Amino acid sequence: MKLDVIAFDADDTLWVNEPRYIAAEARLRELLSPYADGEAVAHDLHATEIRNLTSFGYGVKAYTFSMIETAIALSNGHISGTEIDGILQVGRRMMQAPVEVFEHVEPTLAKLSPQRDLMILTKGDLVEQGDRIARSGLAKYFRYIEIVREKTVESYRGLLQQRRIDPQRFLMVGNSMKSDILPVLELGAYAVYIHYDGTWEHEKAQIPDRLPTTYKEIKHIGVLPDLIETIEGG
Amino acid sequence: MKLDVIAFDADDTLWVNEPRYIAAEARLRELLSPYADGEAVAHDLHATEIRNLTSFGYGVKAYTFSMIETAIALSNGHISGTEIDGILQVGRRMMQAPVEVFEHVEPTLAKLSPQRDLMILTKGDLVEQGDRIARSGLAKYFRYIEIVREKTVESYRGLLQQRRIDPQRFLMVGNSMKSDILPVLELGAYAVYIHYDGTWEHEKAQIPDRLPTTYKEIKHIGVLPDLIETIEGG
Repeated sequence: MKLDVIAFDADDTLWVNEPRYIAAEARLRELLSPYADGEAVAHDLHATEIRNLTSFGYGVKAYTFSMIETAIALSNGHISGTEIDGILQVGRRMMQAPVEVFEHVEPTLAKLSPQRDLMILTKGDLVEQGDRIARSGLAKYFRYIEIVREKTVESYRGLLQQRRIDPQRFLMVGNSMKSDILPVLELGAYAVYIHYDGTWEHEKAQIPDRLPTTYKEIKHIGVLPDLIETIEGG
Repeated sequence: MKLDVIAFDADDTLWVNEPRYIAAEARLRELLSPYADGEAVAHDLHATEIRNLTSFGYGVKAYTFSMIETAIALSNGHISGTEIDGILQVGRRMMQAPVEVFEHVEPTLAKLSPQRDLMILTKGDLVEQGDRIARSGLAKYFRYIEIVREKTVESYRGLLQQRRIDPQRFLMVGNSMKSDILPVLELGAYAVYIHYDGTWEHEKAQIPDRLPTTYKEIKHIGVLPDLIETIEGG
């Protein structure tokens, strides 16, 4: 049985992402040190970020709003325009940060792409993710580039139906149990989990006691071609 | 010859959009009246908005950033956190504004959708446009919902190829010469222009002296079904 489409999560699967957010948070703590201690900044920022997810979505633009809201709240509105400009700069630097592609990624894509349709399937902001995909230099390996609002069972189902992809011939690779693995398994497709130490708390999920045989786990993306051969031969 | 897919722009084609921005600009003029006159606010805001399009894209989140940047610049950094909070509220109100669907839209979609695949094809922010589509109550009429970063010849070509849609059996309806009409005509597809008085300056374009016969113009969307019948019969 041949797999038709191999889909890859992008952030923290193909390239480094979460550390950008950790660094921005550290910078915000410094900027707000006249108004609040670091613990309070971290706590408020995370709460604001989660509260804003529904209306603002994922990505740096949404995160920058959350930083500004946190700054206004913790300074009781006393923060100055100049200081807020400093926060805007933090956001801009996040957007412009170089894209650090993980080891093993490019040779793996180069090996897989001639024989199979590869897909980038990522959440986030259209402009930001589009830029990072372009700057990664990896776009040429992908037939499909899909940037979606959320990765849920419904969104995967809709996507596969629209592209006329059979779930049983679809494999998703990613570092988020919640977004890349569990919903994909629920559709009867293959899901390959790659653990990443820096994975955002929000993307973690309880792992069920029993996982279907379409669940696989690998140490790094370099061993994916062998795993795919095993799946297709099995 | 039957058309396979009828695609619709959303903002200012299916529902009111630009007036939200005009109202927000008026509110920003008021908020910044201690620092600059209205003309200067409008001028700076538009320049900032256009400059930010490449890195931030379209939509309310990007626009709110531009409003904040304008406020910081025109106040020489003296604006307060409380005042910037007022600008954030302007952005939030824009996002939450009711979706005002134009007259004739719903009956037209109801008439067309049983026999043809309808598509929403809109630029902008995934979350914002996704929300407005959901709140419009129109999603049920569409087989495809596509939110893209830009509408260019390349982006239309890529989209049609991926969905395996023949350009000669594709028709796009919209109010923007620049984004909905000219690139579509260049691909040999049908483009139907509906003039809207409020169309954003940025979406206007020089109309070429000679337009191909696949260009059509209608007064309002209610006459689209008749036009489609004429095209298919011709």
